[in-house]
Amino acid sequence: MSCRYMAAVSSSLLRRSITLSPFNPLKPPNSIRLIQSSFQLPVRQCPRRAMSRVGATHDEEAAARAAATEADSGAPTIFDKIISKEIPSSIVYEDDKVLAFHDINPQAPVHVLVIPKLRDGLTELGKAEPRHEDILGHLLHASKIVAEKEGIVDGFRVVINSGASACQSVYHLHLHVLGGRQLKWPPG
Amino acid sequence: MSCRYMAAVSSSLLRRSITLSPFNPLKPPNSIRLIQSSFQLPVRQCPRRAMSRVGATHDEEAAARAAATEADSGAPTIFDKIISKEIPSSIVYEDDKVLAFHDINPQAPVHVLVIPKLRDGLTELGKAEPRHEDILGHLLHASKIVAEKEGIVDGFRVVINSGASACQSVYHLHLHVLGGRQLKWPPG
Repeated sequence: MSCRYMAAVSSSLLRRSITLSPFNPLKPPNSIRLIQSSFQLPVRQCPRRAMSRVGATHDEEAAARAAATEADSGAPTIFDKIISKEIPSSIVYEDDKVLAFHDINPQAPVHVLVIPKLRDGLTELGKAEPRHEDILGHLLHASKIVAEKEGIVDGFRVVINSGASACQSVYHLHLHVLGGRQLKWPPG
Repeated sequence: MSCRYMAAVSSSLLRRSITLSPFNPLKPPNSIRLIQSSFQLPVRQCPRRAMSRVGATHDEEAAARAAATEADSGAPTIFDKIISKEIPSSIVYEDDKVLAFHDINPQAPVHVLVIPKLRDGLTELGKAEPRHEDILGHLLHASKIVAEKEGIVDGFRVVINSGASACQSVYHLHLHVLGGRQLKWPPG
């Protein structure tokens, strides 16, 4: 998930919640205020949303560096509020262990984030221990289910960023599932 | 893994096997002949190796489309020979379930492929079933071990391509572990 997600959340999440979320077909005024309120905290770490492709790349890197300063703090992230449904999201798949929802700032026609509901120390993949193999396997299998649901199972890419130099900007492990267009090589 | 891997295997793999492989500190003449022989089969599916960045991207897409025609054939891939050590590789990590080795055509200062030794139907992530969750979790944890061994655990990206439009060109599930430079966004 990109830091730009947070910068864009007030307008784009509102639009999605109206048009896409199965849980919010019509968005109540309370949720509007909630989104606007939630938006205030994370945006402090984010630069302005870039309008150009090059600018977007640099923004992502800057956002990731900023987020890394709190990587090991154990502080809650925006994902906690998405998991609790305090912040609505456009959910693609959910079970007792994982949640998958559309990225608010998609990098392809389909761009879904898959996260564990319980972070359990997995701020990033670089913190994985043997005890995490069960949830890691479940997350990858869930990514395939997401691809099926989104109609891209014949062609999709899963990306996991770990650390600032990989552009990770939310320290709660998340898998990006991208597809719906020809993806390029190298992968960033 | 890219199809260009195969186009480059005769020269580059030879160089790596001499300089890097823990199992081939000095390469015997037999292995040279074996590499040259093994090189003949897969290269038929591959276009010429591109010299430019743009050309490389297009080559990857063309190679992936060509490889996809045999995706469901169940035919052996070059990875079977790497697993059996018939083709030497520069191994980073190995256990009874997975093998990790340097990509012969790296897209970053560190670029390692992590594969299951037993394909078990996992030609691509899009074929994953619940029974595969154990190996999928083990592969992701192995990717973290690889990142530690390569000195990039503070910043690395894991990429899984599934299908032609994601640039998959070998139909044996494999995880790319990339790092050692600032990775960009979007991821291809």
